[in-house]
Amino acid sequence: MYAVKPALTEDQFLATVVAALGEPARRLRVGIGDDAAAWKPHRSQLSLISTDALSDGVHFRSEFTTPQALGHKALAQSLSDIAAMGGRPVLAVVALGITDVVDEPWARAFYGGMSTLAAASGCAIAGGDIFRNNALTIAITVVGEARPSNIRLRSGAQPGDYACVTGPLGLAAGGLLLLQSANTRSGNGADEVLRRAYELPLPRLREGRFLGSTRAVHALMDISDGLSLDIARMARASQADVTIDVAELKIHNALARFPGAVDMILSGGDDYELLAAVDPRALPYVAKRFRARFKRALEVVGRFEKGSGKVYVRRDGDRAELAPRGYDHFAAARGNQI
Amino acid sequence: MYAVKPALTEDQFLATVVAALGEPARRLRVGIGDDAAAWKPHRSQLSLISTDALSDGVHFRSEFTTPQALGHKALAQSLSDIAAMGGRPVLAVVALGITDVVDEPWARAFYGGMSTLAAASGCAIAGGDIFRNNALTIAITVVGEARPSNIRLRSGAQPGDYACVTGPLGLAAGGLLLLQSANTRSGNGADEVLRRAYELPLPRLREGRFLGSTRAVHALMDISDGLSLDIARMARASQADVTIDVAELKIHNALARFPGAVDMILSGGDDYELLAAVDPRALPYVAKRFRARFKRALEVVGRFEKGSGKVYVRRDGDRAELAPRGYDHFAAARGNQI
Repeated sequence: MYAVKPALTEDQFLATVVAALGEPARRLRVGIGDDAAAWKPHRSQLSLISTDALSDGVHFRSEFTTPQALGHKALAQSLSDIAAMGGRPVLAVVALGITDVVDEPWARAFYGGMSTLAAASGCAIAGGDIFRNNALTIAITVVGEARPSNIRLRSGAQPGDYACVTGPLGLAAGGLLLLQSANTRSGNGADEVLRRAYELPLPRLREGRFLGSTRAVHALMDISDGLSLDIARMARASQADVTIDVAELKIHNALARFPGAVDMILSGGDDYELLAAVDPRALPYVAKRFRARFKRALEVVGRFEKGSGKVYVRRDGDRAELAPRGYDHFAAARGNQI
Repeated sequence: MYAVKPALTEDQFLATVVAALGEPARRLRVGIGDDAAAWKPHRSQLSLISTDALSDGVHFRSEFTTPQALGHKALAQSLSDIAAMGGRPVLAVVALGITDVVDEPWARAFYGGMSTLAAASGCAIAGGDIFRNNALTIAITVVGEARPSNIRLRSGAQPGDYACVTGPLGLAAGGLLLLQSANTRSGNGADEVLRRAYELPLPRLREGRFLGSTRAVHALMDISDGLSLDIARMARASQADVTIDVAELKIHNALARFPGAVDMILSGGDDYELLAAVDPRALPYVAKRFRARFKRALEVVGRFEKGSGKVYVRRDGDRAELAPRGYDHFAAARGNQI
């Protein structure tokens, strides 16, 4: 079933993983190597947990990515969920289903990419499980912590709230197009911005904590599945309608040359920005503080109104309802958090 | 790539999952449906986390098992790690990679089997991720809690300690043989014992807490990968040798007819019993209390001595070193917790 490879034993493989992960985090009382990892949770905070899986051919293609980028991105995806809860990551565990693409250099690069982001995010890699699979599969579970008062659910949006995002959208979709169209790396600055957005997304942890600690923010979620799909989830959970005004969407310079830039923004996915519902009276103040802190705009993408969870898009003056794009798990592409 | 099936939408599928999971656990402050689940950790305890994955064709075969049993067993495997830390489970998250074998009745049965065991174990199912995959893949992460003083690592075995197990070994291996040899269910009592041991293993949570709270227990781990492999891990972590005396191994009635019963006990795997290193002076007292509490013997399977992590097996008077059976992840069968 599998081609024969120079044998790498368990001990060698685990030594590679442990070396790539570097120093064990001080937060862990029991780390890699026992039945479970153990840590002391913060007294006054809630613990958070989220799990996300990626599979070769579905969420990524191993031929279009490096193992470093894959390790980084797999962790970033889970950290983004902690960001959306206004939390700080504590630790992650990694279930890795390996195929023949995995050898020692691959493992070093994959866990290296993951541990660089983990260290920058204050997140320990606390263990995992490695197993044979038909497709390269990565399931990462992240545990975090948040002050109870900082947690914003996706169900809190109020009629009148502005829908705002923490950074430019569509860049990751542009990066994927580039990676699929050519495998050479150009020195072009715009190309690099797009590629980095796709391969090395940065979870908006500081932004999430800032927004979570701001009373005027009523709802918060991450938009890894694309703006139109995720804003529909917020609208549905909040029992409010929302209208996206295409004329107001900001098109990043690096996207300007793409004729489909607006659609990349609406449904590109993989951006890992946060979507916040912000009280209209406080928006100027919140946006000003956001820009001062993060040197980036809190961009308005739409507005909530009384309703039942519908999404409208206004283009060239016409407002049309966006067909709900529910995933069909039995035919479709991505995974879905429950 | 996939055969066409009657479409089941995301909403229908999630409704099926949520219905199969039943009432949300009170422990959760935020449950299924947001970016992450949230709970209040216990003030004076350590939090525990462990992740385990199963893949069709590697850890199980979907043609030899029911979805109920699969859901039960996948969770049992992770709960067993919490048991080995002397802990109580709090919640689990489930990343499920689906293929065409998954339809609505399958999902109902799978999550139903899981949630029955979860409810019996005091464990909430707090969310997960569902994604397309080439092979049916289940990655479960369980969070638990334990008193710091109740946690026993696998590295604590002392020379002189007895190696003891919390129940009969080899039964799951017998059950697998039965399931592979015939698909009919006989009413035979011994067959039922074996099949249940393979399909519906019960994690030894109460036993783990009892042993963890007993000072004379120096080391504790679960032996899901088989006695000889897991005892070698304890010996290596504890820097002690250990000798298994075949003459002293108890062969369960249901295994008596198998000529290879001893090998099934030594290396069958999938048993989910716990392995404890017990101070020899306290063993009679610990074993007596164990029997009174659990109506089952704490069985001695070996004894630790000064050394460097080697495993010896004594058969018919001859003592021979067991070759270390390290898994080769790049050719071999099972997964491996790191």
